[in-house]
Amino acid sequence: MKIFDEIESEVQSYARSFPRVFTKAQGEYVYDNEGKRYLDFLAGAGTLNYGHNNPLFKKELMDYIQQDGITHGLDLHTKAKGEFMEAFNEIILKPRGLEYILQFPGPTGTNAVEAALKLARNVTGRENIISFTNGFHGVSLGSLATTGNSHHRGAAGVSLNGSSRLPYDRYLGDDIDTTHYLDKVLSDSSSGIDLPAAVIVETVQGEGGINAASAEWLRNLELVCRKHDVLLIVDDIQSGCGRTGDYFSFEDSGIKPDIVTLSKSLGGFGLPFAMVMIRPDLDQWKPGEHNGTFRGNNHAFVTAKAAIEHYWRDDSFSKDIKRKGDYVAKRLDAIVEKYGEGNFTSKGRGMFRGINCINGEIAGKITHKAFKKGLIIETSGADDQVVKFLCPLVISDENLKAGLDIVEEAVKQVCAAEDSIPEETDYFDDERAIS
Amino acid sequence: MKIFDEIESEVQSYARSFPRVFTKAQGEYVYDNEGKRYLDFLAGAGTLNYGHNNPLFKKELMDYIQQDGITHGLDLHTKAKGEFMEAFNEIILKPRGLEYILQFPGPTGTNAVEAALKLARNVTGRENIISFTNGFHGVSLGSLATTGNSHHRGAAGVSLNGSSRLPYDRYLGDDIDTTHYLDKVLSDSSSGIDLPAAVIVETVQGEGGINAASAEWLRNLELVCRKHDVLLIVDDIQSGCGRTGDYFSFEDSGIKPDIVTLSKSLGGFGLPFAMVMIRPDLDQWKPGEHNGTFRGNNHAFVTAKAAIEHYWRDDSFSKDIKRKGDYVAKRLDAIVEKYGEGNFTSKGRGMFRGINCINGEIAGKITHKAFKKGLIIETSGADDQVVKFLCPLVISDENLKAGLDIVEEAVKQVCAAEDSIPEETDYFDDERAIS
Amino acid sequence: MKIFDEIESEVQSYARSFPRVFTKAQGEYVYDNEGKRYLDFLAGAGTLNYGHNNPLFKKELMDYIQQDGITHGLDLHTKAKGEFMEAFNEIILKPRGLEYILQFPGPTGTNAVEAALKLARNVTGRENIISFTNGFHGVSLGSLATTGNSHHRGAAGVSLNGSSRLPYDRYLGDDIDTTHYLDKVLSDSSSGIDLPAAVIVETVQGEGGINAASAEWLRNLELVCRKHDVLLIVDDIQSGCGRTGDYFSFEDSGIKPDIVTLSKSLGGFGLPFAMVMIRPDLDQWKPGEHNGTFRGNNHAFVTAKAAIEHYWRDDSFSKDIKRKGDYVAKRLDAIVEKYGEGNFTSKGRGMFRGINCINGEIAGKITHKAFKKGLIIETSGADDQVVKFLCPLVISDENLKAGLDIVEEAVKQVCAAEDSIPEETDYFDDERAIS
Amino acid sequence: MKIFDEIESEVQSYARSFPRVFTKAQGEYVYDNEGKRYLDFLAGAGTLNYGHNNPLFKKELMDYIQQDGITHGLDLHTKAKGEFMEAFNEIILKPRGLEYILQFPGPTGTNAVEAALKLARNVTGRENIISFTNGFHGVSLGSLATTGNSHHRGAAGVSLNGSSRLPYDRYLGDDIDTTHYLDKVLSDSSSGIDLPAAVIVETVQGEGGINAASAEWLRNLELVCRKHDVLLIVDDIQSGCGRTGDYFSFEDSGIKPDIVTLSKSLGGFGLPFAMVMIRPDLDQWKPGEHNGTFRGNNHAFVTAKAAIEHYWRDDSFSKDIKRKGDYVAKRLDAIVEKYGEGNFTSKGRGMFRGINCINGEIAGKITHKAFKKGLIIETSGADDQVVKFLCPLVISDENLKAGLDIVEEAVKQVCAAEDSIPEETDYFDDERAIS
Repeated sequence: MKIFDEIESEVQSYARSFPRVFTKAQGEYVYDNEGKRYLDFLAGAGTLNYGHNNPLFKKELMDYIQQDGITHGLDLHTKAKGEFMEAFNEIILKPRGLEYILQFPGPTGTNAVEAALKLARNVTGRENIISFTNGFHGVSLGSLATTGNSHHRGAAGVSLNGSSRLPYDRYLGDDIDTTHYLDKVLSDSSSGIDLPAAVIVETVQGEGGINAASAEWLRNLELVCRKHDVLLIVDDIQSGCGRTGDYFSFEDSGIKPDIVTLSKSLGGFGLPFAMVMIRPDLDQWKPGEHNGTFRGNNHAFVTAKAAIEHYWRDDSFSKDIKRKGDYVAKRLDAIVEKYGEGNFTSKGRGMFRGINCINGEIAGKITHKAFKKGLIIETSGADDQVVKFLCPLVISDENLKAGLDIVEEAVKQVCAAEDSIPEETDYFDDERAIS
Repeated sequence: MKIFDEIESEVQSYARSFPRVFTKAQGEYVYDNEGKRYLDFLAGAGTLNYGHNNPLFKKELMDYIQQDGITHGLDLHTKAKGEFMEAFNEIILKPRGLEYILQFPGPTGTNAVEAALKLARNVTGRENIISFTNGFHGVSLGSLATTGNSHHRGAAGVSLNGSSRLPYDRYLGDDIDTTHYLDKVLSDSSSGIDLPAAVIVETVQGEGGINAASAEWLRNLELVCRKHDVLLIVDDIQSGCGRTGDYFSFEDSGIKPDIVTLSKSLGGFGLPFAMVMIRPDLDQWKPGEHNGTFRGNNHAFVTAKAAIEHYWRDDSFSKDIKRKGDYVAKRLDAIVEKYGEGNFTSKGRGMFRGINCINGEIAGKITHKAFKKGLIIETSGADDQVVKFLCPLVISDENLKAGLDIVEEAVKQVCAAEDSIPEETDYFDDERAIS
Repeated sequence: MKIFDEIESEVQSYARSFPRVFTKAQGEYVYDNEGKRYLDFLAGAGTLNYGHNNPLFKKELMDYIQQDGITHGLDLHTKAKGEFMEAFNEIILKPRGLEYILQFPGPTGTNAVEAALKLARNVTGRENIISFTNGFHGVSLGSLATTGNSHHRGAAGVSLNGSSRLPYDRYLGDDIDTTHYLDKVLSDSSSGIDLPAAVIVETVQGEGGINAASAEWLRNLELVCRKHDVLLIVDDIQSGCGRTGDYFSFEDSGIKPDIVTLSKSLGGFGLPFAMVMIRPDLDQWKPGEHNGTFRGNNHAFVTAKAAIEHYWRDDSFSKDIKRKGDYVAKRLDAIVEKYGEGNFTSKGRGMFRGINCINGEIAGKITHKAFKKGLIIETSGADDQVVKFLCPLVISDENLKAGLDIVEEAVKQVCAAEDSIPEETDYFDDERAIS
Repeated sequence: MKIFDEIESEVQSYARSFPRVFTKAQGEYVYDNEGKRYLDFLAGAGTLNYGHNNPLFKKELMDYIQQDGITHGLDLHTKAKGEFMEAFNEIILKPRGLEYILQFPGPTGTNAVEAALKLARNVTGRENIISFTNGFHGVSLGSLATTGNSHHRGAAGVSLNGSSRLPYDRYLGDDIDTTHYLDKVLSDSSSGIDLPAAVIVETVQGEGGINAASAEWLRNLELVCRKHDVLLIVDDIQSGCGRTGDYFSFEDSGIKPDIVTLSKSLGGFGLPFAMVMIRPDLDQWKPGEHNGTFRGNNHAFVTAKAAIEHYWRDDSFSKDIKRKGDYVAKRLDAIVEKYGEGNFTSKGRGMFRGINCINGEIAGKITHKAFKKGLIIETSGADDQVVKFLCPLVISDENLKAGLDIVEEAVKQVCAAEDSIPEETDYFDDERAIS
């Protein structure tokens, strides 16, 4: 359809890598308007942990719509909201010994981050937020100040203030625990890093290149926060909801964040949704201080509740994710060993994994090759140098293997081509620049 | 359900004014879990122009879901998106002689404003944005800098930069055209108001108290913008989509904004959705510069298309809105005349109207009385002093009359009580402070 | 001397208008290295109210140096500082019924403004500062945020935050009291102008074009500040020390500012010096919070004390200034009437006066003509359109008349040339662009 | 004199440590109003490298004043300025193979820093400035953003923007070259540290605690700046003018900064003075963009020229400073060894040295003891934990020894008292809190 060329903004990004018109999707499959089927290892950039149009939720959503359940309710109490909160509390929070107040900001991740930062600043009366190298927390101006990516930062058009940047785990090399540096600047009244309201961190940096912090580093980070009375915000928008194997990505480290942001797969079905989890004594919002028309998306409450009830009542789903994650890890390690020759490394945790390539050009070639073979898979990282594996957690073993086989074949071809041909030339005819 | 008291954040706002648990809704009716029915004159703060769960769109949405249409597609080309763009272009833009590029940011109004401000700054290379007294453009930090409300601004926790505030139409009295002041500061190299990237304006300020700018003021504003080569952004999130009688609220003034933000009723069904309309030569985004997980909500594309096709193919809906708007105006004028005694005034345009009370306490009493009589209606304005009429545009004449009758009765009772009793005491037992 | 062309920065400004090398100066006379004498109606941009190298102070300064009096003492207590404070308190403050604490920041006006703004923000816990159109308060970043001039603002290279701009007296026309607008935005919780720590104002805007606020406007400004519990800072750096006829420029209005900044002629001899006067209860500085190597210039303490003792023990000097000011006013009015034809207006107060020309080109021609006739006089205003009269207050009546005669002759010639010749061509051969 | 208690602001700082009224000074001696003489090892915080009231310059200053030389000349060309520039170019710049344009901002260090940062931002079109932990560059808002000290930063009252903080030499331990971290964040497009206009650095951090960067680190810093096309600004305000042994503190490292700021001892006599040295192609100022009433202090031009001519025509003064610096180092090392027991360390370079104490309380006791013995000496560092030796460079060998003997004796007594008495009690009766 040429309407996309005619009147859709140049801001489009993924559409450039996968220049097809998609019509329907189910589980790990996506279909284009020519009937071609693709395996989806992008999965809404982490939004479709439960697959496309999961039939378990679909029925509940359709029933809700059929019965004229509240669709839009501002922040009014609705049955759907109440039932979601009950389920989240009973199935997710209580069994993990967690106690949090829930806030439903506008249904986007960046809005949840905006709310979290505001609350931290208001509660502490401080302005500074510590964020980390390669962190990604959204592109509205409040969130963008904590996001590292210069492509996104450069679009701000104004100064991005109120955040100090510190090195993430292993940014200064494997031997340096960068929380010691954080501790030092917070202890030093002349460091020039103002005492912050909070530290915001992803346990695995997705957009930053699938950098997984160690559990020890996260524990040390929590210790430094406690020592200096600084709030710890975990942005679990991409890492949470099972992606790393547990519901929350921080579970295995044992830390207890003061504030947690969730979005993406929280809604289960791919519907816009976001939530802020707040340590009860920190819930010092005044009525309506942070508002928004679409806060509390009732359709998403319905599917989010279904997702929790169907997948998280016991630990079987969690075990299955870990099993699959180990399989992905093993396959990636093997690819790296076989074709890497020092140019590839394997990264990540659970089913949040990647192959780090020596540059973005190689990674781009791999994902292009893969797409030609019917696999949708994207890159991330500062230079788009990481092939990012984010397939649905519910993927069948056969399809998981099939997708990895495609990537392996793509890697093989790219490596062979690199040896023989200086420039790859068989891309899509209609492709444009890769974002 | 006590779960709301237990774990929902104190940030909740509307839920305090209408402390019920709502279960379903249809057209202009909302129902609570005790089966009580309410007339809805709040209508999602302008999101439900076509009523709750409009049956015309509901079927199309259910069919789409049933067929496993793409639910979540990042910014990939989907059939649903393409068809919406076609419809919007053919039915809305072309007949009005308008040419715009469409951008789908994260599905919230504030995200559309963030995108519009970023683009204006990037295209012009300037930082300053002129915003107006009593304007409301959202609460993420970029938008919040242009929002006037101190309750929301005070929650920022950081400085709100990059915006200069100027007086809205009639802010300095009826005799002063405040665009002359704008022209003067932009002409004066020593005014201290830096040459802005853009002016952002609502044609009717909803949250600011139903302040309707005159068509002449809007035209003068456009002239000043053109003279100084400053972009004109119309934030039509609350005023647009038919609320004032035309599809765009700026149509009758004849101005042609450079950028327009839409959200709220754009999706038709109450689903999260937002769009930025960009003058073609200004679409200078680089790929992915402004991104977001839920940009382009496919369910909303389906209902948004249906809304356009069902209501805007000819001018009959527009005529009907204007007819009803005239009726509301007539009734409000009558109430003001009968009970005002100088304490009430009638404000607004089309079906975007309000009664300005002498203070917020009176307005709050009126809306409380009304709620007890089965009408959901809210206040707006700096001191919540305006009773705000935002009922669905598709409301039946009977229900429109019924709602106005309730308000009139509430006004009558409040006025009577004011005369005889110093303090109102018959509020809901379980109510908390009104935001 | 070509060294100026070779290694002095292009930032030089006045040197472009008066391209001579000056060697000595006395009273209202300046001499260049070719022995040519000039009458000085620029007088250090208001720094030389007592003339160049005033012999009354010169002897005291030389004695002090001869005796090895402390030259540099950081903020240590020195005899010179103590004696100055005694004199200022006894001769200036007490007779005027004023009680202020004195702070000596780094010896520049902008440093005094930085200190005043910091203190106001710290005492109130608020961030915003109200400043006015066409105001000038210095170019270090804190001060620059309150300065209106876009030439200076544009050089910041970063956003200038924390200040809201309001219209100065008569900026919206003679009929509008702009303090009402200020009152309205401070009363309106949704105005978007955050409650400020302080208002900073010049009673006469020097760099802004010799705009003299009326006493009534200043009184209303003070009333609005008191009503909203906002501090009132008078920047008397250029208007103070006798320039308007009284020691402080705000005396005749009767207002009592909370903070006053002084510099320029305060030191008497032209030596770097600055002072902040603080309402006693507002002196909440912590030790050393605002410091600087050269705060408290002891040489300037010596001459500042001498200036106070010699000129301000009684009101004879004040009367003489007013008499001369009236004479200047009369002459300027006459020039305007004779040559203006609607293109000139006379502005100002006391000996702080100017002729507003229809544009900066005319004003520049006048000052150039005058310089060729031996008079140093500059322009100010947004477009350099005001010929600015700032001669020493101690000027002899003969020289005052002589200077005015030169200006009148220059005006006459420029007007004649404008009529007959399209372009002036007889400027200095070696001149460069006029700043 | 009680006037200091009555009307001088609480902001006073050094006056609290040395509560005397000083009257005169000569060389390394200062005298109070009771005739008591003190040895001065504070020396105007580095302003009096040539001693108080150096007789070599005093005569030239008095002659200049006597002859009515221009005292105040804005930025007009004056004979004094021209002669200073000639001398600086011939005696300082050319022999060192340096070529710089000279700018004379307002006569304070912070003003020079404000000018340097502005210029760097304007020339590069970038906003960010890299500054270092424990750096001190002044307290006006532009400079303060790059200053590390929280006491000063906390007084800002607004956000301090536009600077990113990185670790100074050895801040992460002796084994880590922190320029590698800088290189990494500038190479990483997703580091979140925006590409800066410039890096600003002190070669020895005075206020930060006498931290001397190694020559190798400085060279690496320069390499990183060149690699990323980032300007290198050396703030030589306290370290320059001979303090470290060479005229510029960066000479022995061999680096060539793009911009250098000078003040403090540049004027020679303790008069307010500041200068920015600019790589010629970077002198892209527009006329008057950075102005100020007292820029170019003519009295200081006279003494600054004398200082250069008397002390820097050959390398004898430089050799003498290095000889004395070695002596100070030897003495401090001996003190540390004898009394330190791990609690003291010796720091610094040339005659810019300090004893780092285990805490600020000990350091404060030492300087108090010393003052009672007739020595003025201060502390610096984040916790005021460094006893700072900044005596005049022209000090006699006898007085240098005498001052060090006093410190040694004070250290000895404090160490003895620490062992026996829990709390020191014999301070000055009238002392107040030490800043």
